[in-house]
Amino acid sequence: MSELSSQTRIDGRALDQLREVTIKRSWLSQAEGSVLVSFGRTTVLCNASVTEGVPRWRRGSGLGWVTSEYEMLPRATNDRSPRESRRGKIGGRTHEISRLVGRSLRAVIDYKALGENTIVVDCDVLQADGGTRTASITGGFVALWDAIGWLRERGSLVGEPLTGSVQAISAGIVGGVPMLDLAYEEDSSADTDMNIVMSGSGDFIEIQGTAEGQPFDRALLGRLLDLGTKGCAELKAAQEAALGVSL
Amino acid sequence: MSELSSQTRIDGRALDQLREVTIKRSWLSQAEGSVLVSFGRTTVLCNASVTEGVPRWRRGSGLGWVTSEYEMLPRATNDRSPRESRRGKIGGRTHEISRLVGRSLRAVIDYKALGENTIVVDCDVLQADGGTRTASITGGFVALWDAIGWLRERGSLVGEPLTGSVQAISAGIVGGVPMLDLAYEEDSSADTDMNIVMSGSGDFIEIQGTAEGQPFDRALLGRLLDLGTKGCAELKAAQEAALGVSL
Amino acid sequence: MSELSSQTRIDGRALDQLREVTIKRSWLSQAEGSVLVSFGRTTVLCNASVTEGVPRWRRGSGLGWVTSEYEMLPRATNDRSPRESRRGKIGGRTHEISRLVGRSLRAVIDYKALGENTIVVDCDVLQADGGTRTASITGGFVALWDAIGWLRERGSLVGEPLTGSVQAISAGIVGGVPMLDLAYEEDSSADTDMNIVMSGSGDFIEIQGTAEGQPFDRALLGRLLDLGTKGCAELKAAQEAALGVSL
Amino acid sequence: MSELSSQTRIDGRALDQLREVTIKRSWLSQAEGSVLVSFGRTTVLCNASVTEGVPRWRRGSGLGWVTSEYEMLPRATNDRSPRESRRGKIGGRTHEISRLVGRSLRAVIDYKALGENTIVVDCDVLQADGGTRTASITGGFVALWDAIGWLRERGSLVGEPLTGSVQAISAGIVGGVPMLDLAYEEDSSADTDMNIVMSGSGDFIEIQGTAEGQPFDRALLGRLLDLGTKGCAELKAAQEAALGVSL
Amino acid sequence: MSELSSQTRIDGRALDQLREVTIKRSWLSQAEGSVLVSFGRTTVLCNASVTEGVPRWRRGSGLGWVTSEYEMLPRATNDRSPRESRRGKIGGRTHEISRLVGRSLRAVIDYKALGENTIVVDCDVLQADGGTRTASITGGFVALWDAIGWLRERGSLVGEPLTGSVQAISAGIVGGVPMLDLAYEEDSSADTDMNIVMSGSGDFIEIQGTAEGQPFDRALLGRLLDLGTKGCAELKAAQEAALGVSL
Amino acid sequence: MSELSSQTRIDGRALDQLREVTIKRSWLSQAEGSVLVSFGRTTVLCNASVTEGVPRWRRGSGLGWVTSEYEMLPRATNDRSPRESRRGKIGGRTHEISRLVGRSLRAVIDYKALGENTIVVDCDVLQADGGTRTASITGGFVALWDAIGWLRERGSLVGEPLTGSVQAISAGIVGGVPMLDLAYEEDSSADTDMNIVMSGSGDFIEIQGTAEGQPFDRALLGRLLDLGTKGCAELKAAQEAALGVSL
Repeated sequence: MSELSSQTRIDGRALDQLREVTIKRSWLSQAEGSVLVSFGRTTVLCNASVTEGVPRWRRGSGLGWVTSEYEMLPRATNDRSPRESRRGKIGGRTHEISRLVGRSLRAVIDYKALGENTIVVDCDVLQADGGTRTASITGGFVALWDAIGWLRERGSLVGEPLTGSVQAISAGIVGGVPMLDLAYEEDSSADTDMNIVMSGSGDFIEIQGTAEGQPFDRALLGRLLDLGTKGCAELKAAQEAALGVSL
Repeated sequence: MSELSSQTRIDGRALDQLREVTIKRSWLSQAEGSVLVSFGRTTVLCNASVTEGVPRWRRGSGLGWVTSEYEMLPRATNDRSPRESRRGKIGGRTHEISRLVGRSLRAVIDYKALGENTIVVDCDVLQADGGTRTASITGGFVALWDAIGWLRERGSLVGEPLTGSVQAISAGIVGGVPMLDLAYEEDSSADTDMNIVMSGSGDFIEIQGTAEGQPFDRALLGRLLDLGTKGCAELKAAQEAALGVSL
Repeated sequence: MSELSSQTRIDGRALDQLREVTIKRSWLSQAEGSVLVSFGRTTVLCNASVTEGVPRWRRGSGLGWVTSEYEMLPRATNDRSPRESRRGKIGGRTHEISRLVGRSLRAVIDYKALGENTIVVDCDVLQADGGTRTASITGGFVALWDAIGWLRERGSLVGEPLTGSVQAISAGIVGGVPMLDLAYEEDSSADTDMNIVMSGSGDFIEIQGTAEGQPFDRALLGRLLDLGTKGCAELKAAQEAALGVSL
Repeated sequence: MSELSSQTRIDGRALDQLREVTIKRSWLSQAEGSVLVSFGRTTVLCNASVTEGVPRWRRGSGLGWVTSEYEMLPRATNDRSPRESRRGKIGGRTHEISRLVGRSLRAVIDYKALGENTIVVDCDVLQADGGTRTASITGGFVALWDAIGWLRERGSLVGEPLTGSVQAISAGIVGGVPMLDLAYEEDSSADTDMNIVMSGSGDFIEIQGTAEGQPFDRALLGRLLDLGTKGCAELKAAQEAALGVSL
Repeated sequence: MSELSSQTRIDGRALDQLREVTIKRSWLSQAEGSVLVSFGRTTVLCNASVTEGVPRWRRGSGLGWVTSEYEMLPRATNDRSPRESRRGKIGGRTHEISRLVGRSLRAVIDYKALGENTIVVDCDVLQADGGTRTASITGGFVALWDAIGWLRERGSLVGEPLTGSVQAISAGIVGGVPMLDLAYEEDSSADTDMNIVMSGSGDFIEIQGTAEGQPFDRALLGRLLDLGTKGCAELKAAQEAALGVSL
Repeated sequence: MSELSSQTRIDGRALDQLREVTIKRSWLSQAEGSVLVSFGRTTVLCNASVTEGVPRWRRGSGLGWVTSEYEMLPRATNDRSPRESRRGKIGGRTHEISRLVGRSLRAVIDYKALGENTIVVDCDVLQADGGTRTASITGGFVALWDAIGWLRERGSLVGEPLTGSVQAISAGIVGGVPMLDLAYEEDSSADTDMNIVMSGSGDFIEIQGTAEGQPFDRALLGRLLDLGTKGCAELKAAQEAALGVSL
């Protein structure tokens, strides 16, 4: 990877710099929460849908439910991929990310305060350039916030269901150099790829680190966590700006 | 339908008036043609993807191929619908519209001039408020135009594959009154619903008319075709404005 | 298409002539309505099945339901096609025609008079030589009639559910010449193919016209509708002969 | 089972009597072999389709292939059953019978003499009243015969592929009494149900006997095999009459 | 088959000799019945699972239900086979054997005495070397016995649901010679293959005999049934030894 | 969780103590590598299958391929779960773990040295009591080792494909207390659950940590990594004992 020399990134960013982040609320008009989030060229539409009631296995418990479904449009990627609906099955990667987004959002939900309401956060990737799962979590939180606001206005909440905020970002080691928020080209040549989901309080909700090439040691892990912590703090600020509140 | 009194429409439009039409080209940066089209609140992302070569059954023929896939995001509708990818099968309506869009676009393609290239036009409905198939055809044509331009720049065409332009609009009879470009609320109470696909020359590529209530006679059919002809002419003008050419 | 010279058809028919139509009632003994219909070599078994009650989404409404499923046997066609049951999914064409047949039959049903009964009309194509969907609608109506008669005998109707009769026929432009009731060989070389569903009163229930080649203008459309109207009137006579009633 | 007293059957037949058997050849005009077979009310359409070449795993071997697919139309049964194509999977019973029919027909085929040709015998049950698998085998053999005749006329055979004929019939113990060719009502109350597939030489190709109630001993087994042997001999005569040859 | 000379088998067994049979109860600790059974190298894990209640179609009848599912691990066979779960559908053979095992076990069940309880016997083939279905039935019976014992201890039975015992073994004609309990290599070169399911009383529950090559006559059938009867008696002894009871 | 008081575990283990680990090689006789691994009651059969050649997308590259499929038998769990093969689709959890096991094993493979050979490691969970994915990785490595040995003996390797060894273990915070190798009951009440995959050199191949309850801070993360490092070192010793080599 000669073009990834030690201090220069392919798009000119500093090693610890996020791509440009935009978070547009109420992007569409029908969903209870509708957020178009982008991390550089990566663009995800996060729609939060409220339905009264909960899945069968949870009925009568007084507890609410939050879940998520993630999917990529066929031409989100550089080459068109077949639709999973046409292939008749969801791929492993799609399942895995859907589950990650759902877990991450549930980490800041008080089910009792939500009451027997269900919120589904659909994250549909319109364009993919690395970091689609972290954009989905970060934008999905804002859509979830708006859906909860919608429930609050209707008096349908038992209490205040949000116990905190959630942000997510990737970090990785490319050409031996740790860097933040990998774009697709960086990601595909990374030795180690890490996704870090944090709460607004600066603690970890989920960390997933994978050595694609060389196994990594504890020191390198520490540097990736440092980068992730910095990135999540900046994403929290972007969420605060979009929502006009202090998280 | 008392609120659909004879001359007033729910959104204040005249009976022969289209909703506001917007056609944004190069909306995303990766697809060879990427168009965000909206007819009022109905919003469809039309991405045209070029691949060299043609499906197996057409190889060696010297002829190109154009096809389309249509799908709705789960929260395109007022209430969230399950994803077809999760249900493991494509519904009848999705199949039917995908086939209609593909046929309509192929009607203005000279396969020989296209050479052995394939263009897939993905029409993903981000928000649905009636007329998603007609917006898909109208926007899909612009995405197809851009994909062909992309091939032309690379010198990959044998000739000029576009033999004309395509537009599509709905018309229907609501409360006994013929009107153009039905929004969802009008559509769901229509007696007769018609989708009209036309070429830029003013001829018919496809007409589909269905009596949901009372069967219709030849005079009413004529009035619907008049409305559709007027609407398609205006959509052609909108395509011309977006493309900066005369079609 | 030299053999399709202006006035002679491949099977010697006049341009506005139907193929031989046969409608056999009670062809099998178990279904409430069982009709074997043929348009020339095209042969469809239409079985109407009555079940008490209606689908879940309609329960308690006091309204009945009529639906249809269309499918082709694997060797209905000249070359054997794989079974859709083995491929694990229904193709787009099958879905589309099933929906068309169901809509067409529902156009002459008064749901309230039917009471909370469901009638499913299965149209299984035993042999296909063009016009399978129009034969399905025409024969399916007779099967539906017999199924309603079965309900009437049992005193299970609220009123008289049939508000009229339904017929369907194809017309098309082959080698520049409009003609009625296309056989497969004609259909596959047609410039324009039209399916016309009419009520016994001579109004349109559904029209679907597709330009496979050259877009068509309003004058040609008129000639196809004339042919279709003549054909449907003759099919109505054939239904009347089979049923021994005046529709 | 009081109505099944020792010597009288529900339809008045003798204990060792077949239902009326009809075998109509060339019932449809497109398949290479097309046979409508009925055993009483049980009616099966057996279409044999020839294709040049063999499945991939057999190519270049010089050997042909014969296989079968069995399926029931949704309203073959007294109550309508959902289509397997709509449910997206083939049921166990359908698979099991398809395999049985294929094995039975292959038992009289010399693959070398058939050359690299494939014959698929589709057995579609139009009406079911017990014995659908035995009617499928018996009628399927005649369709297979005609398909081989079609190949012979074209000079596409290497030798004479039929090494014999095949017949199949059921026998069972109902109310303690052994009887031949069970109709549905008898079958559903049988203690033991046996399907017997024989070659024209009077030997066994396949026997399947199941104790639904009481296990059966060797003496009873002998009586069922006697009945089956008698029935198959009569079916062989019916095949000979239909084919106008001595098998 | 020169190596299958008249009196010597490939593994040195006598013609009427079973492979070594082992039946290990409580092989795993969580299932109500857990049996690891092996016939030579063929190894099947039979787990019987009890659930309170019965399937919807049987509720309120007071009757219990027993069913079975059979499947092979991907590397049970000499060459790895794709998982049916990945292919998205169960193959015909898997369905057929699942149904056979279920029927065989139900033959010795008194549903009334079982009460409204369901027992599912899962037979997962860990290693396959011929006779997987007969090992599944023979081992499945022991697992079923233990599951019923578990219900008895909890006082959840209405009476004594087992009306007998079940054993199963294969026999076949290889190189013209009848032999018992075919291993895979023998089975794949057999002219006739027979599976025999018997009750402990020495009667037949199910027999399935298939001529893969030459049809077989009644005398040969008799010799195969003799072998099967001997084999089942020995398997019954093995079950008795494992259970420490007289069946 | 009163029974999880600060220093005592439900099964009496110390907080940093593994359950009993057993690794049986050549457990079955047909697969190139066949390992039965257990961590306490958790029991996984790991079969490694060698096939010559590689998937289509890798052909001609000179590189080998290693992949894995994980699945649970229906009664691996305390309550029986439906088979994924019967439901017609693989669940998200199954996909996720299959991918994790494959990635982990590939981390120690030199594809070039492997040559164009494919090794599939099937991990079928016979009994599940927590830690099925870590047992699969740890046992799967041993099966992979044996499959590579099999290739080496046949002279089918280009070089030495194993660049190291792999171990995996879980750690978690239960009732506020960090502990190693969680059993199911501990796992289901854990605040934080972590899976740690390490190389024999003591570096990280993959870490996945999820806060099920309270988000965790960097200090707690450090304690979990300490536990995991200790556990993996002990698993490496168990692998060495089973293989009779020093890894």
